[in-house]
Amino acid sequence: MFRHQKELQFEVKVDKPDPMLAKQVQEVLGGQFGEMTVMMQYLFQGFNCRGNEKYKDMLMDIGTEEIGHVEMLCSLISQLLDGASPEDQAEAAKDPATAAIMGGINPQHLLVSGLGGLPSNSQGVPWNGNYIVASGNLLADMRSNLHAESQGRLQVARLYHMTKDEGVRKVFRKMLARDRYHQYQWMEAINELEEKNGVVVPSSFPPEAEKEAQEEAYKFWDLSEGTASKEGPWAQGTAPDGTGKYVHVENPQPQGQVPNPNIPDPALHHDLTKEKVSSK
Amino acid sequence: MFRHQKELQFEVKVDKPDPMLAKQVQEVLGGQFGEMTVMMQYLFQGFNCRGNEKYKDMLMDIGTEEIGHVEMLCSLISQLLDGASPEDQAEAAKDPATAAIMGGINPQHLLVSGLGGLPSNSQGVPWNGNYIVASGNLLADMRSNLHAESQGRLQVARLYHMTKDEGVRKVFRKMLARDRYHQYQWMEAINELEEKNGVVVPSSFPPEAEKEAQEEAYKFWDLSEGTASKEGPWAQGTAPDGTGKYVHVENPQPQGQVPNPNIPDPALHHDLTKEKVSSK
Amino acid sequence: MFRHQKELQFEVKVDKPDPMLAKQVQEVLGGQFGEMTVMMQYLFQGFNCRGNEKYKDMLMDIGTEEIGHVEMLCSLISQLLDGASPEDQAEAAKDPATAAIMGGINPQHLLVSGLGGLPSNSQGVPWNGNYIVASGNLLADMRSNLHAESQGRLQVARLYHMTKDEGVRKVFRKMLARDRYHQYQWMEAINELEEKNGVVVPSSFPPEAEKEAQEEAYKFWDLSEGTASKEGPWAQGTAPDGTGKYVHVENPQPQGQVPNPNIPDPALHHDLTKEKVSSK
Amino acid sequence: MFRHQKELQFEVKVDKPDPMLAKQVQEVLGGQFGEMTVMMQYLFQGFNCRGNEKYKDMLMDIGTEEIGHVEMLCSLISQLLDGASPEDQAEAAKDPATAAIMGGINPQHLLVSGLGGLPSNSQGVPWNGNYIVASGNLLADMRSNLHAESQGRLQVARLYHMTKDEGVRKVFRKMLARDRYHQYQWMEAINELEEKNGVVVPSSFPPEAEKEAQEEAYKFWDLSEGTASKEGPWAQGTAPDGTGKYVHVENPQPQGQVPNPNIPDPALHHDLTKEKVSSK
Amino acid sequence: MFRHQKELQFEVKVDKPDPMLAKQVQEVLGGQFGEMTVMMQYLFQGFNCRGNEKYKDMLMDIGTEEIGHVEMLCSLISQLLDGASPEDQAEAAKDPATAAIMGGINPQHLLVSGLGGLPSNSQGVPWNGNYIVASGNLLADMRSNLHAESQGRLQVARLYHMTKDEGVRKVFRKMLARDRYHQYQWMEAINELEEKNGVVVPSSFPPEAEKEAQEEAYKFWDLSEGTASKEGPWAQGTAPDGTGKYVHVENPQPQGQVPNPNIPDPALHHDLTKEKVSSK
Amino acid sequence: MFRHQKELQFEVKVDKPDPMLAKQVQEVLGGQFGEMTVMMQYLFQGFNCRGNEKYKDMLMDIGTEEIGHVEMLCSLISQLLDGASPEDQAEAAKDPATAAIMGGINPQHLLVSGLGGLPSNSQGVPWNGNYIVASGNLLADMRSNLHAESQGRLQVARLYHMTKDEGVRKVFRKMLARDRYHQYQWMEAINELEEKNGVVVPSSFPPEAEKEAQEEAYKFWDLSEGTASKEGPWAQGTAPDGTGKYVHVENPQPQGQVPNPNIPDPALHHDLTKEKVSSK
Repeated sequence: MFRHQKELQFEVKVDKPDPMLAKQVQEVLGGQFGEMTVMMQYLFQGFNCRGNEKYKDMLMDIGTEEIGHVEMLCSLISQLLDGASPEDQAEAAKDPATAAIMGGINPQHLLVSGLGGLPSNSQGVPWNGNYIVASGNLLADMRSNLHAESQGRLQVARLYHMTKDEGVRKVFRKMLARDRYHQYQWMEAINELEEKNGVVVPSSFPPEAEKEAQEEAYKFWDLSEGTASKEGPWAQGTAPDGTGKYVHVENPQPQGQVPNPNIPDPALHHDLTKEKVSSK
Repeated sequence: MFRHQKELQFEVKVDKPDPMLAKQVQEVLGGQFGEMTVMMQYLFQGFNCRGNEKYKDMLMDIGTEEIGHVEMLCSLISQLLDGASPEDQAEAAKDPATAAIMGGINPQHLLVSGLGGLPSNSQGVPWNGNYIVASGNLLADMRSNLHAESQGRLQVARLYHMTKDEGVRKVFRKMLARDRYHQYQWMEAINELEEKNGVVVPSSFPPEAEKEAQEEAYKFWDLSEGTASKEGPWAQGTAPDGTGKYVHVENPQPQGQVPNPNIPDPALHHDLTKEKVSSK
Repeated sequence: MFRHQKELQFEVKVDKPDPMLAKQVQEVLGGQFGEMTVMMQYLFQGFNCRGNEKYKDMLMDIGTEEIGHVEMLCSLISQLLDGASPEDQAEAAKDPATAAIMGGINPQHLLVSGLGGLPSNSQGVPWNGNYIVASGNLLADMRSNLHAESQGRLQVARLYHMTKDEGVRKVFRKMLARDRYHQYQWMEAINELEEKNGVVVPSSFPPEAEKEAQEEAYKFWDLSEGTASKEGPWAQGTAPDGTGKYVHVENPQPQGQVPNPNIPDPALHHDLTKEKVSSK
Repeated sequence: MFRHQKELQFEVKVDKPDPMLAKQVQEVLGGQFGEMTVMMQYLFQGFNCRGNEKYKDMLMDIGTEEIGHVEMLCSLISQLLDGASPEDQAEAAKDPATAAIMGGINPQHLLVSGLGGLPSNSQGVPWNGNYIVASGNLLADMRSNLHAESQGRLQVARLYHMTKDEGVRKVFRKMLARDRYHQYQWMEAINELEEKNGVVVPSSFPPEAEKEAQEEAYKFWDLSEGTASKEGPWAQGTAPDGTGKYVHVENPQPQGQVPNPNIPDPALHHDLTKEKVSSK
Repeated sequence: MFRHQKELQFEVKVDKPDPMLAKQVQEVLGGQFGEMTVMMQYLFQGFNCRGNEKYKDMLMDIGTEEIGHVEMLCSLISQLLDGASPEDQAEAAKDPATAAIMGGINPQHLLVSGLGGLPSNSQGVPWNGNYIVASGNLLADMRSNLHAESQGRLQVARLYHMTKDEGVRKVFRKMLARDRYHQYQWMEAINELEEKNGVVVPSSFPPEAEKEAQEEAYKFWDLSEGTASKEGPWAQGTAPDGTGKYVHVENPQPQGQVPNPNIPDPALHHDLTKEKVSSK
Repeated sequence: MFRHQKELQFEVKVDKPDPMLAKQVQEVLGGQFGEMTVMMQYLFQGFNCRGNEKYKDMLMDIGTEEIGHVEMLCSLISQLLDGASPEDQAEAAKDPATAAIMGGINPQHLLVSGLGGLPSNSQGVPWNGNYIVASGNLLADMRSNLHAESQGRLQVARLYHMTKDEGVRKVFRKMLARDRYHQYQWMEAINELEEKNGVVVPSSFPPEAEKEAQEEAYKFWDLSEGTASKEGPWAQGTAPDGTGKYVHVENPQPQGQVPNPNIPDPALHHDLTKEKVSSK
């Protein structure tokens, strides 16, 4: 069960409105790697966690924090949109600068949300459940979390340069710091899990001969011309399992057959042109 | 530019058809972490790569390999669907076993693709471009790649147990081995990049006081009851930057204001009920 | 079965083209609460109606009217786009005003539709079937209809202020009046249904002790700090059923257990780190 | 800012697993009118609220409660899936009953979530931001909320009959009661707002002659054959504004022109076949 | 403007309910090539048509017919679902045959639509505006229409075999005949347009040397091993323009450069690892 | 299996960056008829092809070519975005021209892809699997391919006029020529298939009396006022089957019944208001 406090986690006070920036900020609210994504991802991972109390508790801590980040960004966007009015556009014809701003804003900020945040990205695409994952496998999911915080912090860092508004930048500085911490947090959890269970997901599917095609577990198939990739640590030396040796396959050859599927039931109404046409 | 060879990368020969399994296999063809995802993700990362030839070449090698995995899975699904016919359903009323199979298959395998693979997941949701990312930041993207291969291998391992068909399992054994190798590969690349540039993405946004709120970069905000999470390595000790010390905040208090947004332009037609209603 | 007359329901003649406005108008054509939504919603409710002829007939009347509104908006958008040309953009570099217009238009109006209306919203997101509902329960659906007409009229009212073009405004005045009437219409139907069947949907699921947890049917759980919400008519007095008394729960406590799910089958390859890590 | 308590709002203990029911329950978790929808809708309405503290506080109270409902449903689904295993399908060939269950479950419950709730509906379509609205107009939004709770309670009532599991039914009884209360709550708020501001949204767009086409605000256009609809209260008597009289238009005639759009710029490459073909 | 008649275009009377078939039939109602698609496609093409009255009139004729086809399929699905009840599932545990049917139906037919048609396909994916096109170019669009009627009739033909219900088959026989006629209709229109304007879309973009790379307009690039494709009429002989000769390029070589993009602005926070890593 | 060569198929060198054009070009990369669509469509048709080697080989040839077109367009977009920087927006306030450009670009080109191509269209909607079809019926699919190349070439021709950049135009000239060739190619294949199998898809579903309602296979239902459509070749003369005569039905009457569906099970909680209200 959840509770809400009225204050925001961090102060959100912009120096002055900027509706074009409001549109860009939607990316880190409702985009693929925005706050809605990490909020829903950590909550679902926490809700679905079986066993592993330490991790479950931690997922609920951070998932709950992220609900508050969605709240902060809605407040930020509302302030960036402050004072915007439908009538601006009717005036825009007279002034290229106003026209440029009207052209650059998200029309849904006026028409749909009435100057509030939207559950969508910087191009207006609505957030959707396919952005998140909660697989039940902690190592897989924490790698997902680390990647999400990496993409998310990258986007905030890019946004940071898109404004000189000190109020906005102050909010971003807090978010950048929290995203840094969250990257550390997932790294620590990943290290702990890898030490216990090994580095490959899922660790419980062993690379034994009867189960996995071991001969394919260390080969680099060089399928694009050029040899630069052969210099990487993935193409030479010992694998993280400490036993396998990487093999660089210079000119890899297919091992399979030419597929030759059967002709289907006539009730499917394929064009059975094979013989007819070849007899032409 | 690309070229195609007629043979499959690995042999794909199922022992016997199984249309319910064909439906499940769609998850690893056209799902969030299926072969279409890794194919498009690596190709876009390679196409968009600026500088970094070693990595670009490697991305093109593996992206090209993954096109062939999409091909293999289409062949696998076609074979699992072999012999299925629209008339089976008309017969199903007579036999619960046939009815169960018809109930469990994807009707689009009959109606839409005529017994071929579909660009959608095990629930019929079409693959979409939001599944992938190519950000231009190599470390962020390779973390994404490691996570995708982790989720992908987890799903194949689960699928492995859903069939006893030795032909199908042989294909999965190859895929499991390649997914293992690909996890190693991204780990190697990640290690190399972290050694050069540091572990936080983006590394070029420094945690200096004037830019980032350092005081928030090491704090664990404990926002869910319970103290299990405080035992984790993310709540005590030194951070990966070697200097910061983690702080566990037992009962965190908000630092921001209660938001108090301005009343908007009347042309937006908000309900300005504030005074009226409070005067009731 | 349907028939078409060549004339539009109302006259649509814009004073002069305005491609930026054309983009905004897409919201009320192909957006969440646009004319495509009410058209498809009323038609599906009418097609699926079982019994209740008076309502079914009325749904078909208004659904059929809305097809004509889609037609009117396509005509409006076509006129707003009149004269737009791909070459404008090639000229835009020379003139900020032209550049601003090109930046503010929907590129699909040039590239995809060739100056016609699109089945998508003001941000280019395609209309989809999830915007509508036809549940078979008349009261639930007519509440949905009232809400759709409320959001729709609100958006048209906002659009009204975004232009001073008298031709466009004349069309909007007709739409505003029809949306007003349609709100009345759904209110009348709702009142009639509520009088017959009661105000709760579904009315046929009675709050008898053996079925519904009556003790939870009148409580306001105050889960956000602050006491303003306690002043509302939802927190004091008698409920619309005429018997229940509202209870404001100041500091609500959870009534459930701490969830403690079972560990799953190993074939799912969860990370079974519970004991291992806790024994650390 | 938010906080989390470990206990669920209400007890969730199913009598025995039922993976087919787990699939259906997804509708009220991640469907169009599921708990994710009301949670996100009330939170966004609360976050974006400008002025109107009583309503804002109330929105935050109930939005916060709904996060806990998502949590409860994830727990319910996890329990319904308890013990499901990938190997069941490999065994299904031997037993029609097992095959029927495997055919009827959501394969993503095994492959993707490892027996946990998914952010998608009963057909596997991911939740998306288009399900919600927060327009800034309180009356419009509360009508939306009433409709969402109506559809939501209807679906739970239907689900209630799909199981005889007393543990599951106990959870549904709580949800039915809360959905009943929430319907009352929105009705109370709507009544209050309508009394203050009038019944039409937006109330601040007046039907004055110069603004709205009053003559169209009371007419029922009878565009579907049959006269049953003419008996309704929407076609006779006085409108809720107390002045307008409804008019039933028996055989409505179009008032607009036959549209005759201009031929576009040749650079758009329309087929300019008009003259050529008509001269044929 | 549109009008509605109460009778269906063709009689729809099923012999007996079949909820699994109802799920499959959704494909031709709300799928990629279902009746909603052709209805919306022809209506938008008609609404957006500039000039070309003969075609515009014809598009409106057939678009209006297709609204009635959506109506017929909703009636068909309602009848196939007749008598289905939520309680069936609660009984299914006792009987594999009932379980198989419950597993094979669309749960939204019970939970969401209350036994009515849904605006979604056989896998539950909602219909969306991306299924249609109205480009302003008649030849391009009529080719689209011919393709849609081809896929649509193919799907109905496959469905025909999925049932032995004579009532259902009678409806399909009408639909198959109309789809046959509509294929003829688009062929006739295409022939007429090709005769007037030539066979390439857009015909008004001429292949003059200064505009189009003529040397690439007749070459078959053989990029997949094997020589079967070289036997086709696309690789030898004269092109439809009557002048160009096809060229089969046996071993095509790339004509472009190796791409070498510039390093971006540091504010984008790419990993500038190029030099660092290559200096390793 | 596939292989990659480092060189692009054709040279891609823009004269100078143009970020607004980069946004438009996304339509032909990741839009409904962009290169991702034809690439995936031809590959899936090739992968799923059963029998018909000549066509399968040809599909693989052209599908493989299209992967290289995606590569070329990513390179084109990267060059058009060259030099764009987040800081431009912070500077835009000073200069309407810069503001206009910032308003007109896709913010995801900065925030998400770091100046690379995106798998989405010109409005930011992600590419999805519903754009393609691979039905197993060659004639249906090749008609789809001809339509896709027609729409695609039309869009490139429109784009051609949106820039005067000679480097960009040179790329478009190559694409226009290839799209011309590909239209020829599908026409040749279609002609061959129609000659063998007849012009109606599916040809194997014969119009025999017991199967198809022949009387409906030649009628034009004139459901929109006006008589222009009656002049077309689809309303008079002989059909392509050489026997049927077209019939123009001036005032078509419905042949079906007024639908009268049964009242459903009370557990579905429809509003059974029929009698109650009619008795009012």
